[in-house]
Amino acid sequence: MMADIDYGYLKDDDGQRFYPITNYELLTNKPDLSGYAKSSDLSNYASKLLFNIDNYGAKSGDRNFDNAPIINNLINKLPSNGGTIYIPVGDYWVNTPIIINNNYVHIVGENSGFRSNIDHDPTNSNRPGGGSKLCLTPTNPIGLKLGDSNIGDRLSGVVFDNLNIVGAAAIGKQVSQTGIYLNRNSDGVKIINNVIMNLDFGVVAVGSDALHLSNNWICELTNGVHVIGSSQQCQIQNNYIGCQPRGISLKFDNPYGATVTGNNIYPDGFECIEINNGTICNISGNNFQSFYTGAIKMSGNNILFSNNMIYLRKNNGNWSSDPIGRDGKYGAIHIDGDDYTINGNHILSEQPSDDTRILIMSGSGNKLSMNTISGVSNRKIVINGSCNNTLSIYNCSDSEFDGGGNSSNRNIN
Amino acid sequence: MMADIDYGYLKDDDGQRFYPITNYELLTNKPDLSGYAKSSDLSNYASKLLFNIDNYGAKSGDRNFDNAPIINNLINKLPSNGGTIYIPVGDYWVNTPIIINNNYVHIVGENSGFRSNIDHDPTNSNRPGGGSKLCLTPTNPIGLKLGDSNIGDRLSGVVFDNLNIVGAAAIGKQVSQTGIYLNRNSDGVKIINNVIMNLDFGVVAVGSDALHLSNNWICELTNGVHVIGSSQQCQIQNNYIGCQPRGISLKFDNPYGATVTGNNIYPDGFECIEINNGTICNISGNNFQSFYTGAIKMSGNNILFSNNMIYLRKNNGNWSSDPIGRDGKYGAIHIDGDDYTINGNHILSEQPSDDTRILIMSGSGNKLSMNTISGVSNRKIVINGSCNNTLSIYNCSDSEFDGGGNSSNRNIN
Amino acid sequence: MMADIDYGYLKDDDGQRFYPITNYELLTNKPDLSGYAKSSDLSNYASKLLFNIDNYGAKSGDRNFDNAPIINNLINKLPSNGGTIYIPVGDYWVNTPIIINNNYVHIVGENSGFRSNIDHDPTNSNRPGGGSKLCLTPTNPIGLKLGDSNIGDRLSGVVFDNLNIVGAAAIGKQVSQTGIYLNRNSDGVKIINNVIMNLDFGVVAVGSDALHLSNNWICELTNGVHVIGSSQQCQIQNNYIGCQPRGISLKFDNPYGATVTGNNIYPDGFECIEINNGTICNISGNNFQSFYTGAIKMSGNNILFSNNMIYLRKNNGNWSSDPIGRDGKYGAIHIDGDDYTINGNHILSEQPSDDTRILIMSGSGNKLSMNTISGVSNRKIVINGSCNNTLSIYNCSDSEFDGGGNSSNRNIN
Repeated sequence: MMADIDYGYLKDDDGQRFYPITNYELLTNKPDLSGYAKSSDLSNYASKLLFNIDNYGAKSGDRNFDNAPIINNLINKLPSNGGTIYIPVGDYWVNTPIIINNNYVHIVGENSGFRSNIDHDPTNSNRPGGGSKLCLTPTNPIGLKLGDSNIGDRLSGVVFDNLNIVGAAAIGKQVSQTGIYLNRNSDGVKIINNVIMNLDFGVVAVGSDALHLSNNWICELTNGVHVIGSSQQCQIQNNYIGCQPRGISLKFDNPYGATVTGNNIYPDGFECIEINNGTICNISGNNFQSFYTGAIKMSGNNILFSNNMIYLRKNNGNWSSDPIGRDGKYGAIHIDGDDYTINGNHILSEQPSDDTRILIMSGSGNKLSMNTISGVSNRKIVINGSCNNTLSIYNCSDSEFDGGGNSSNRNIN
Repeated sequence: MMADIDYGYLKDDDGQRFYPITNYELLTNKPDLSGYAKSSDLSNYASKLLFNIDNYGAKSGDRNFDNAPIINNLINKLPSNGGTIYIPVGDYWVNTPIIINNNYVHIVGENSGFRSNIDHDPTNSNRPGGGSKLCLTPTNPIGLKLGDSNIGDRLSGVVFDNLNIVGAAAIGKQVSQTGIYLNRNSDGVKIINNVIMNLDFGVVAVGSDALHLSNNWICELTNGVHVIGSSQQCQIQNNYIGCQPRGISLKFDNPYGATVTGNNIYPDGFECIEINNGTICNISGNNFQSFYTGAIKMSGNNILFSNNMIYLRKNNGNWSSDPIGRDGKYGAIHIDGDDYTINGNHILSEQPSDDTRILIMSGSGNKLSMNTISGVSNRKIVINGSCNNTLSIYNCSDSEFDGGGNSSNRNIN
Repeated sequence: MMADIDYGYLKDDDGQRFYPITNYELLTNKPDLSGYAKSSDLSNYASKLLFNIDNYGAKSGDRNFDNAPIINNLINKLPSNGGTIYIPVGDYWVNTPIIINNNYVHIVGENSGFRSNIDHDPTNSNRPGGGSKLCLTPTNPIGLKLGDSNIGDRLSGVVFDNLNIVGAAAIGKQVSQTGIYLNRNSDGVKIINNVIMNLDFGVVAVGSDALHLSNNWICELTNGVHVIGSSQQCQIQNNYIGCQPRGISLKFDNPYGATVTGNNIYPDGFECIEINNGTICNISGNNFQSFYTGAIKMSGNNILFSNNMIYLRKNNGNWSSDPIGRDGKYGAIHIDGDDYTINGNHILSEQPSDDTRILIMSGSGNKLSMNTISGVSNRKIVINGSCNNTLSIYNCSDSEFDGGGNSSNRNIN
């Protein structure tokens, strides 16, 4: 109870000695701590241990402030077992790319704040949408990319979730812009629940195995999702993807085992889906719409393309010419390769009646069955004469079928 | 060090002058702050910046307390770029509708606390389930709805996630009740991971474009999900939807480009799915069960209905008569319109053998292919005589097919 | 203002009377609270009300510390309407099972920290991956299981989300290990977004109704997901599942109404999918790969198996013999039962040409249509002579079809 301190000789202004108080309980007007938090309260407010970029210097709403270095610094400080960088609601401008330099890094937004450019947005007319927005400045080529540091052969377990990644297409971009660029081999990257728009490329994934891209809205940009290099077992499911006339909505180079299901692919990309040299892919249960010949273009072998709704639409009352110059003989669906199964699709086409609906350009053993091809055309299915053993089963009448003069290509009706 | 305050002449009760202490460090019994939180600790507990309704006066567990005004007030205070309202675990009673008056508003629960009414819940017998529960009082017609304020042509980017929305059906409701009512044009609304039950209508969406409704359990209510007005590009995926005999599980008016995949549609709605005047829709890979004739009813054109499992079940050992009075000739699947593709479905029916399995009531160019229709019936496929160019391919024998006396309707077997 | 306390006769060490200070405002060096948090600040950092296991004594990174009792204690303290237990990023060792003893309990990780064993992980070579990891010690048979307490007929609304559940397969496990064991009747359990690996069994679900298992990576373990006992309306969607040669990737006993869509099933399980005594199931739009005969094995009736990509692969250039000794006549797809629809699948097989691709072993009324069976084989479809009324439509030539000498089994080509 008694203090063992040396009081010294403290005096007040008029020379009176200060009398120390050793029993704080005697203070009747103790500091009022009723408004202060107990440490134990923090546990009651226990939360996900996110790294909120606002706590580390990020600043929303300032076009001249580059948030990327702050986010990159946070990523670099994450432990080897990863962590989550949290982007609050706000317009966070990024003048330079955000670089994911570690495995197991999650970049997570609060919400993806969807809005289409089509609707006037009085509060934010050049950058539509709200939520956790990463706004690329006009000179920034990339929103988020993988890093180059020595972290193993493949970067693993990176997640991009619930972000609104917006390019500068509407405000005078000065470079080609990509939203998410997986620029090195990776495994198990997830791109989920995002809005990605106003860019040249939404997602470019190079050498991505087990890429899982689902429940995104990747529209109103030139190109949607391009999975290039080569990939295994990608799942592209339940997305909206819509592009512009010079772009491709969904492109795969050398995919092995891709599963593309439940997507709505909008106009106006010149191709809804392009698969180059694919194999063991399953493209089923999607809803494709396009204004152009060559909307579906596939090469490779052993691809299952089934149960898709495909609508080849006039645009403002007219059938559009192809932005890359292909003519009506190219085929709304254009296939090069062996052992395709094209089954149970519904094709409604407003192409001119002379234009080809499905063209098998090369290959053998292709099978087209139970496809409905609505509308009038004398070229519903056209097989190049170099093809062998193509089997068309109950897709169209003989007069709507052209076997290329090769009798191994049969139409059954 | 020396204070410049005027001490005045403060005296204690027995007239002794108070000697001020100017050096707080001399207090040996300083206030014990060891249990208090430093502001810097808050960053370490950085969290998603949610607006927890409990921090703004919400109260769970009190049937007489209306939480809606508190939530509405929070919504109205959100900035123009949106934000997230968080509903903790608890029974939050709402006596009046929650109104979403801004774009980019997320109403997010902690968990959806699923429980079926079928299981006895000793702790909460009239309001099954736990989690983040919004309980409609018996007089409240709507759980959550969109607002009417002038926020553009379409309300954008609203999300309802991980909520348990429970009506008063089990405790004497006094009005017709709807869980989520999208009562004005909207774009990109997401309804995900919710439990919605004990209501007249689970979700009613009017003029909803790009509605994304997935991974919900919307059952044990009269009607499930009704997408009315007209809509573009709705995705209804991977849900459970089950209704009551006077209700429709999934209804669309004027849908364009809807994608309905991977859902389990339970009994006992009188219809599993009703599409009125649809086009470019893809209904595939679902699992439907029903007790009634007319379980699947579709009008419009260019609809793909494929790869669905459809089970027409007896109920307690007997085939039920239709709650709305349709007879067995109506067809378990009833179609009006042109250019349908009905392909690769599996239909197991316990209807009386005289009852119609699939009826094409009107239209031309419809194609039914590779459907399995198990069980015995002399009316597996019936085409009204007014229909033209209906093609039935390997669905049933000629004796099980009725072409309506119109030779343009063919059965291939 | 004046205190009513009795000062007593407190004196300091040298006998001076203590002069109490009753007006704290006179203290010029008040305690500096500028670094302390106001309670109101907590609202600004409002978060989801998770129970962070770290706040209750959990410890990551210590192989000798069992976190299960701490988590179990938290679960047992949850109120009857449930709550969320949060696992931060870290290697949390569990020496004993985590037991879910209540309804509506969510066990939620920060991220699932995916990494394949195939990639060298210099930081964590024996326990690949990061994120919110539950590491089973070598003697722990179960990661998470349901409890036995009297909580109703079925445990409801339990969720496992975003966890990395890792067994000790790579570090000398001493018992058979299961990641998630739903060991009693349950309803509406969700297993979503997890990584589950290095175990004997990923998920074993006994008597699970409305199990929703989606967006998981359950690979590099002996067995993947086994839904046993009997179940209703399970949804297994958009997962990666891959097993080892003595295991089965996806197994169902007595499923009713299961929907299995959009999954990638990898090698090397001896079976990709086994369904015993199933009915009203829809298995469509998946991507299966296997090294073995009997990769797809189904019994029961009224099962729809459609639009699947199936690749029977050589392993390192050779066709592998079956780990459980079945010969090439068993069939890559082996079916016992009535009223199957096997439609629109694409089968690429590298089996020896004499090996059977599809075997219908028993039953009547089975229908195989529009399946592509690439490659050379004289046994593409084989029907046991005991089967009746099997219909094969445009799957293969007559020489590739064996009707078992029973003329009710037809091949249409």
